[in-house]
Formats: sequence, C-alpha cells, structure tokens
Amino acid sequence: MSSNNVYVIASSMVRVSRYFSKSYKDLVIDVVNELTSSVGSIDIDYLIVSNVFSDSILEQLDISTILAQELGLTPKPTLRVETGESSGLTAITQGYSLIKSGIADTVLVVGVEKCSEFPTPTMNKHFIKFLDYEVESIYGLSIVNEVSLLMKMYMRKYGYGRDDLSSWSVKMHSNALKNPYAQLRFLITKEQVVRSQVVSDPIRLLDMYPVGDGASAVLLSNRGDIVNNEVLEIVEIAQATSQPLNLREDLLSLPATKTVFNKLLSKSKLDLNDVIIEVHDSYSILGYLIIEELGLVERGRAPSIIDDLDNVNLSGGLKARGHPIGATGVYQVAEVFKIMTTGLGDIRRDSCWGLIHNMSAVDNNSVGVLVRRCSC
Amino acid sequence: MSSNNVYVIASSMVRVSRYFSKSYKDLVIDVVNELTSSVGSIDIDYLIVSNVFSDSILEQLDISTILAQELGLTPKPTLRVETGESSGLTAITQGYSLIKSGIADTVLVVGVEKCSEFPTPTMNKHFIKFLDYEVESIYGLSIVNEVSLLMKMYMRKYGYGRDDLSSWSVKMHSNALKNPYAQLRFLITKEQVVRSQVVSDPIRLLDMYPVGDGASAVLLSNRGDIVNNEVLEIVEIAQATSQPLNLREDLLSLPATKTVFNKLLSKSKLDLNDVIIEVHDSYSILGYLIIEELGLVERGRAPSIIDDLDNVNLSGGLKARGHPIGATGVYQVAEVFKIMTTGLGDIRRDSCWGLIHNMSAVDNNSVGVLVRRCSC
Repeated sequence: MSSNNVYVIASSMVRVSRYFSKSYKDLVIDVVNELTSSVGSIDIDYLIVSNVFSDSILEQLDISTILAQELGLTPKPTLRVETGESSGLTAITQGYSLIKSGIADTVLVVGVEKCSEFPTPTMNKHFIKFLDYEVESIYGLSIVNEVSLLMKMYMRKYGYGRDDLSSWSVKMHSNALKNPYAQLRFLITKEQVVRSQVVSDPIRLLDMYPVGDGASAVLLSNRGDIVNNEVLEIVEIAQATSQPLNLREDLLSLPATKTVFNKLLSKSKLDLNDVIIEVHDSYSILGYLIIEELGLVERGRAPSIIDDLDNVNLSGGLKARGHPIGATGVYQVAEVFKIMTTGLGDIRRDSCWGLIHNMSAVDNNSVGVLVRRCSC
Repeated sequence: MSSNNVYVIASSMVRVSRYFSKSYKDLVIDVVNELTSSVGSIDIDYLIVSNVFSDSILEQLDISTILAQELGLTPKPTLRVETGESSGLTAITQGYSLIKSGIADTVLVVGVEKCSEFPTPTMNKHFIKFLDYEVESIYGLSIVNEVSLLMKMYMRKYGYGRDDLSSWSVKMHSNALKNPYAQLRFLITKEQVVRSQVVSDPIRLLDMYPVGDGASAVLLSNRGDIVNNEVLEIVEIAQATSQPLNLREDLLSLPATKTVFNKLLSKSKLDLNDVIIEVHDSYSILGYLIIEELGLVERGRAPSIIDDLDNVNLSGGLKARGHPIGATGVYQVAEVFKIMTTGLGDIRRDSCWGLIHNMSAVDNNSVGVLVRRCSC
C-alpha cells in the first residue's frame, strides 16, 4: 500500500543552450532516457508537460500527447500546463495533486522549451505575451520596461547607484561555473555588467537571463522507497496570483510571492540559512526583491549580502543557468533534487530542506514548493 | 467537514456564435457573472481555464492569471490546461484532482475560445496543430483528411453509400433546435448534407462542426449541499492517449476512447439507454464510431439507429451546438448539468446518470466523465 505523501524520486536535464540541430522531441527523449536509466523500470501513470510557446513557435498543440506517443507512453493520460514563466513549477504542483488525489501513483513531469527557433527580435514578440495584451503589451509595454521601472525606484528609495546593483549577476555567474547544466558558465565583473548593452535603462544585458533552449524531467511518486537513492518529500506547495503592476500600491513588494512564502513557511520554524533556495531571478532586481520578500534580509538591504550568500541559486539561477521559459521550474526542482542527493556536478549540500520559487512576469503569479530530504 | 466527493454544483454558458464585438474577457465575465448570480456568494479556491489558441490568436499567455485579475479572483491560484480539442474535459479532471487531493474545496472551471478573430483560411493553419507537426501537419495532412479516410473505409467495409451517412448531421441539427446555446439552430435534410460544399471528399461542409466562439463555466465543489439546487456527483473520470492514426492496426476503432469508456463503465452496470450522453462528434463519421465504441450499437450498424436515438448529444453535439475548441468539454458538462437539473432550455431529463466524452483529433487523446444525479 502506498502512502499519501509525494516524493521527488529522480531528476534529469540537458545543459541549457541553443540547440539548433535538436528538436524539442530530441531534447525530451534525452532527458527522459537519462531519467529512466537512473531509476530502472518504473511504471509511469501520467505525463505532465510544461511548455509555453509550442503553439506559436513549434506549430504544435496537444504537445503532451505527441510526446507520450514519441516516448512510448500511450495509453497513459497526459496534460500540458501553462501559467507563463511559472509553468514549470505549476506542472510540479499538478503532479503533486494527481498523486495526492489518488488518481496517479507516479507522475513524470517534463519541462521543455525551444527559444532558439527564431532570432531574438522575433522571440521578443512572444515574450511580451505574459503581460495583459489588452491593457499592457498592445501599447508596447514589456516585462523589461516594468522591471526597469522597479530598478529605478529601488535605487532611488534606498540610495543605490547603478554599480551597487551588479552584485547579483556577478554571484550568479560564479555559481553557474560549477553547474554543468548552466548556460552561462563564465565569470563576469561588476564593471562588465555596467558596461554591457542597455536593454531598458537602467537594465543592461548582463542584468537579465539569456535566451536558451532546455528540457528537464522530474519523477514524482507516492513510493519514496521505489528507488535506492535518497529522495525528497514535497512537504508543502503554494500558488498565488496578484493584480497587474499598474494596480499595486507598493511596487517594490511582490504580493503573490509573499502569499506563497507565507504558506510554505507557516507550518515549520525553518532557519532559512539552512535551506537550499532557488528563486526566479529573471532580472537581477527581481532577485533582490524576492530574497527580501523571503525575509532573508530586510528591505533595501539585499545588495549588501549577495557576496556572502551561499544557499541561494547555487545553480546560477535564471540569470546564469538560463531560463528556458516553460522548463525553468522543472529545472529548479531537478537541480535542488541533485544538490540535496547525488550532487549537481560538484555542488552537493547535506541540507535537509529545499525551497523553490518560480513566477511569471513581475509576480503576476507565483508558485512555491518546500521539500525535505527523507533521510533527515 | 467536507466530503471527499466532487460535485458539479452550477454551470453557465453563452450561445456559441461569432462574437466580433466581444473580447474573450467579455465572454468569460458574462458566463462567470451568470454562474455566480445563480449560486450566490461562494468562495472560489482555484480557477482553471481551458483554452487552446490564446498564444497564437489572442497574443496572450498565462491567460488564467489575466482572467483571475479581470474577475477579481486574485490572489487565488490559477491554471491553464491544454490537451488540444479535449482541453475542456481535461480541465474538469484537473479540478476534480485538486478537490480530491484536498488542495481546493471549490474550483471554477472556465472554457473559452475565440475562433472568429481571423478568417477561416487563417484559422485552418491553427486547427492542424493538433496533429504531429514533424510527422503529419508539416506535410499538409489535416484532421479532415484523416477523417475523410475513415469515412471512405467505413463506407466500403460496411457497404454504405454517401447518402446513408447523413443521418447524424440531420439528427444533431434537430436536437440543436431545442438548445438555446447552440450555434446552428436550423433543420437540415439528408439532401442538403450531400449537396453541401466538399471539404475533403467524402466529407461535406454539413458533416463537420462550424467555426465559432464560446465561453462556458462549471463550478466544482466538495460540498454538494452548498447550493439549493440539485447537483451532480462526479463518479468516475478517465483519460487516455493513443498512437497516431498511421500507427494503428484497426483504423475504425478508437483506442483511447475505448480505454476511457471501459474505465468509466467498469464499476457500474449501467443501461446506456438510461444515460444522458454527450460525445465528441466533430465530424459525423466520428459520431458513428464513438457510439459503436461505446457499445450502444454493434460495429457498422450506427447509421441505422440514429433516427431513434433520444439520449445522445441532446445539445446538438459539436456538429450543431458548435465546437469552440478549448471551451467544448466545459460546454458538454455545463449542458449535461442543466439537462439533468434545471433544464437546458426546454430539454430536461430525469436521468440519474450522465456520460461525457471529449477527444482531440482522431482520438489522439480522449477524456471521459461519469456523473450521477445526487437525488437519485
């Protein structure tokens, strides 16, 4: 008899990169083959695919069924979920729900995105779709515009110069150097950040995530003992939405993220310094705001602690590991699983707890997952 | 304390039509307002949106969050699901899962699609995306091509002429005449079907669904007693995928649909003649094949029983009620709810059981829901 708990029992991914010669199917087959070879023969009851741009970029709908056919998983049921940039972690929450409800015992969650199919100017027309078309993007507003506004407000409110806000990017590149799956595996300096191309002043190219392709897979099960390796239990999940930026009172708070963190942390008295944390730093200013929302540091003080931060975005984060949109949340869970069990390259921590945060646009919606290493 | 059962407690919809002057938001606001005014003040824990073409047609991703903002539902979590033409019923199954798992008590499921934003030739480029791009649609194959092949095979195998296969369409238009929400509310004759425009021989225009917009809403809850009206209990759900048509041995069977019906009906000894049934008849030949798969009639005999069929697609089916792609499955549940409780226009049946079937392409995936009237 299986328990009612939900465990992360395996994960796999390809390095985030530009795969001009591989289709989305190739990438998914690679990660699923690696995952299944690591756990042996396990019956999969349900396939969930997190993907954002299949309709507009890949000319493909019902992509979860097409992938089930390709992977030989028919007649198993499938599902594609899409909640913008947070789709990956939303997919994990749906897998959790299907197991908790007794509908499935084991769920394969796959994240995949091909952002290199078209040149960046074309892709930019798709990236703005996370904002409200009728209210925001139709008038030319994009996420980077909104984020540049936040960065200006943050600098003014707390008295920072442009240089002071480059520490996040420097740290993320330093972390990514140790992650074999990261897209940007090279060190940068604060000077390079400030001298990089202006995207939307004061946001520079090295303040933001690179465009890349990716595929990642996570196996969820109600049987933590089905594999010989260490596994993680999903202790809590949380999801929330918020009003669009133009309707918020305090632009420097992230209301959905706040709701999510409150729910994740309300039941346990965790010291966050002992937790492996992955947050959605698509832009460096969002990284600062998120760790302030998390309570790791008081508001306005985030830039001062970055150099010493040794438990946040060990993967390199969206900034340097990369952000293959629909796949990102699945990468985050896949990475935390490896960091806390077998190791992500040389990155391994004996932490008992992991916290993952994934969001869309400037916190339009936010998702969080709290995991515990079962051997703790 | 709430039960672990899941109930359909309310439904609403707009007439399927071409709404040139209404946005998708307008349509959703209309159906949600109607739904909430019918049940009074009920706390909604989760919004699920079934929509297929938002990315390519509406320039909108994360549509479920945008709708939560528009409906004043923030900070409640949201989810968009997409499994091609069966997205609507897949959304219902995810709502069921979220309630069964204890994550939510009450889930609002909304289906919405705007297929009239572009002319039909443009839309046809989107409708082929349900097939595998790399294997089928890139070479010009479309669903209507596959369906015309099946129709030819069916005619040859069972000795029917073209005229003999017009009864489904005639019946559906007759049913739709009584459904105030149906798109095609006019009678047709067999002669009109056969004389209508060729789409892909032997498929004629009146053999297939019309293009239309729609929005529909269903409220699911673990509290069947929260409203004063009669409610339905979701007794069983089932989902399955199948190999693409080119890899199937028997082209005239529908393997995913078969798996779904087997699971839905295995636990109860239902006389199908007493069940209100809604099936996915996007093309009339699929209507025949589905009711044969269901066991309502032996294989090859479906055309002979259509005139007397009084419990299948009382709504008019996809053929005549219309098929607003991502909204269709939600319409099916909304209609069955009304037929079995307050009445769908003048259509009302005291049946205890309802069975709903929704699928994508030629049975690439299929979803089924079995409901029971609680007062039975």
